[in-house]
Amino acid sequence: MTARPANTHQARLLRLLRDSGPNSRAQLGDQVDLSRSKLAVEVDRLLETGLVVADGLAASRGGRRSHNIRLAPALRFLGVDIGATSIDVAVTNAELEVLGHLNHPMDVREGPVAVFEQALALAAKLRATGLADGGFDGAGIGVPGPVRFPEGVPVAPPIMPGWDGFPVREALSQELGCPVMVDNDVNLMAMGEQHAGVARSVGDFLCVKIGTGIGCGIVVGGEVYRGTTGSAGDIGHIQVEPDGRPCACGNKGCLEAHFSGAALARDAEAAARAGQSTELAARLDAAGTLTAADVAAAAAAGDATALELIREGGNRVGQVIAGLVSFFNPGLVVIGGGVTGLGHNLLASVRTQVYRQSLPLATGNLPIVLGELGPAAGVIGAARLISDHVFSPA
Amino acid sequence: MTARPANTHQARLLRLLRDSGPNSRAQLGDQVDLSRSKLAVEVDRLLETGLVVADGLAASRGGRRSHNIRLAPALRFLGVDIGATSIDVAVTNAELEVLGHLNHPMDVREGPVAVFEQALALAAKLRATGLADGGFDGAGIGVPGPVRFPEGVPVAPPIMPGWDGFPVREALSQELGCPVMVDNDVNLMAMGEQHAGVARSVGDFLCVKIGTGIGCGIVVGGEVYRGTTGSAGDIGHIQVEPDGRPCACGNKGCLEAHFSGAALARDAEAAARAGQSTELAARLDAAGTLTAADVAAAAAAGDATALELIREGGNRVGQVIAGLVSFFNPGLVVIGGGVTGLGHNLLASVRTQVYRQSLPLATGNLPIVLGELGPAAGVIGAARLISDHVFSPA
Repeated sequence: MTARPANTHQARLLRLLRDSGPNSRAQLGDQVDLSRSKLAVEVDRLLETGLVVADGLAASRGGRRSHNIRLAPALRFLGVDIGATSIDVAVTNAELEVLGHLNHPMDVREGPVAVFEQALALAAKLRATGLADGGFDGAGIGVPGPVRFPEGVPVAPPIMPGWDGFPVREALSQELGCPVMVDNDVNLMAMGEQHAGVARSVGDFLCVKIGTGIGCGIVVGGEVYRGTTGSAGDIGHIQVEPDGRPCACGNKGCLEAHFSGAALARDAEAAARAGQSTELAARLDAAGTLTAADVAAAAAAGDATALELIREGGNRVGQVIAGLVSFFNPGLVVIGGGVTGLGHNLLASVRTQVYRQSLPLATGNLPIVLGELGPAAGVIGAARLISDHVFSPA
Repeated sequence: MTARPANTHQARLLRLLRDSGPNSRAQLGDQVDLSRSKLAVEVDRLLETGLVVADGLAASRGGRRSHNIRLAPALRFLGVDIGATSIDVAVTNAELEVLGHLNHPMDVREGPVAVFEQALALAAKLRATGLADGGFDGAGIGVPGPVRFPEGVPVAPPIMPGWDGFPVREALSQELGCPVMVDNDVNLMAMGEQHAGVARSVGDFLCVKIGTGIGCGIVVGGEVYRGTTGSAGDIGHIQVEPDGRPCACGNKGCLEAHFSGAALARDAEAAARAGQSTELAARLDAAGTLTAADVAAAAAAGDATALELIREGGNRVGQVIAGLVSFFNPGLVVIGGGVTGLGHNLLASVRTQVYRQSLPLATGNLPIVLGELGPAAGVIGAARLISDHVFSPA
């Protein structure tokens, strides 16, 4: 059982060391509002828990040289990001640097038992390389649907039959013998990009994940905002067209029904069958099915139909993001997820919609950018989630 | 010059007394995390500033009877709520109870100098009744457009020509000789309903104000969320119909162009002229023009055209609110502003849209209700805004 900090001062020191790496006592003192003697007491107590270790002398600042402090090098977090069609598993150190990362294709609809069997097998494989000989000090889990956050239980997840009410947190905590936290995959992506990606130092931002479905992570004042029942950011079912396409949720004209990885693949297959694109038709012939990645490849090869599908999709999601920008006035919009392979074509059409539709005061200084971390965003976010828990008073 | 609390403990005590009225020292001690001796020190210091006064003995709780403490009864806040077509001015005590309230019709387009001349005249009239013989201890001002909050300056307000960059805070602070804070009128309405209305005890909620235009106050964790540049909640220009009606902002199909007090009046006049409603035509003949209030009155009289206009408008705004509910997952949606005279007909059609379009997880426990305070919401919110400032460390 990993020790936990005894108070909020210690928690704050642990998070500082996580986010900015080894620090001298003097540097820590500059950053927390503690007297020198109180700081010394708290650091000494943290050293006793084994969560932090001394790490040599710091560079001189003129007076007596100060000792460097760092998080224990043996601490290990497990980050698991369950997507609709694949699992990402990574091991990080306490500074959330990824030490090992595995990806495995798997359909989330196989259900929680099969999916976690696979996730645990991947974790065991990483451990077998000697990455986490002391076991894990905590694990963060992301799932592609809404989660009742305090309990770590998926709730009525539309694309995850068999998962409703499954006690992910409890089951995995027992299996792994360490604390576990569970969140929506989109929130984890936002936390990952905030910790190590494009959203560092931004307080209020949106992170739109376009994968099989579409969701949005909302960060307010540096913290993920989850809403009253944990479903905040569920933008895939915002209506973009009255009487539009039927959606799996039972409504018509939802964003996801018109644009998402799944919708894009369907549209591409339809275009290929209708003879609108020889490029897509050739890929369909070869593979028997098409994915968003095929559309990206066809677009890269200059295929006009693929480019048009991406442009239309960008317009749809841009239309929704424009509304959210007017409403939320974020400092940054990050676009990520599987279909970011569509890259700058998608981004260009999202930007056009947002800059055209939202008022200048909201868009004046608004960067709209692709995520930086790719599939690592989710697992780093998962490690961040559990580290926030482990680095808070018990 | 009113004294200010010296530290965050004192600030917290002042706000407690504001929000829950006179308290015994013992009750205060239960609510703040301070030792008995530290609490005594802070209360004594507050008594010295004159911000609080002793108020007799509290009921016995078994031991020695504790003294009641309350905010100084002579403290006075001025709340000013500038709307597009009228000014509300009120005087409150330190518990934000309205002691006097005046309303005066005035077009905000007459510009800041004329508007504030009128507002100050109304404030003087209230003072003349003996409500604030000691002057004001602070004033909160609401304006119907985006505000650069820290400076208290309107920014590029679409319906307020002549106001862009006008130093409202500085000018009024000089004029009144007290601290002044300025905010968007919609944020003040949200704060008013939170302090004394329907949103008491709700942490995360939306307050949609439908007046001449449409805006939305966003409260996260009990605090107004203003966004990166202060324009959060600016939902009037979310597109509800591609290639819809031209809007004053230069775009097409904005919510405000399709439904708002102004749009409703225009539609009613058109319907009256087209012979679709004898009720509206009679009112147009009598007054030469129609307002949202005429539509409300016609609907109350059973006029089918007026009812249909309200239903359509409710659908439009409901469509936008449905998207915001999916995105923000609030615990409550409050509808207020001038057109709430349209009342339950409007509410019914908003509810239908939201409950139909948003996912069950977001709407399961979501009350959608009319504001309770009417025009008092804005002035109470304004008093709350300035009291938050006065009751915080200098």
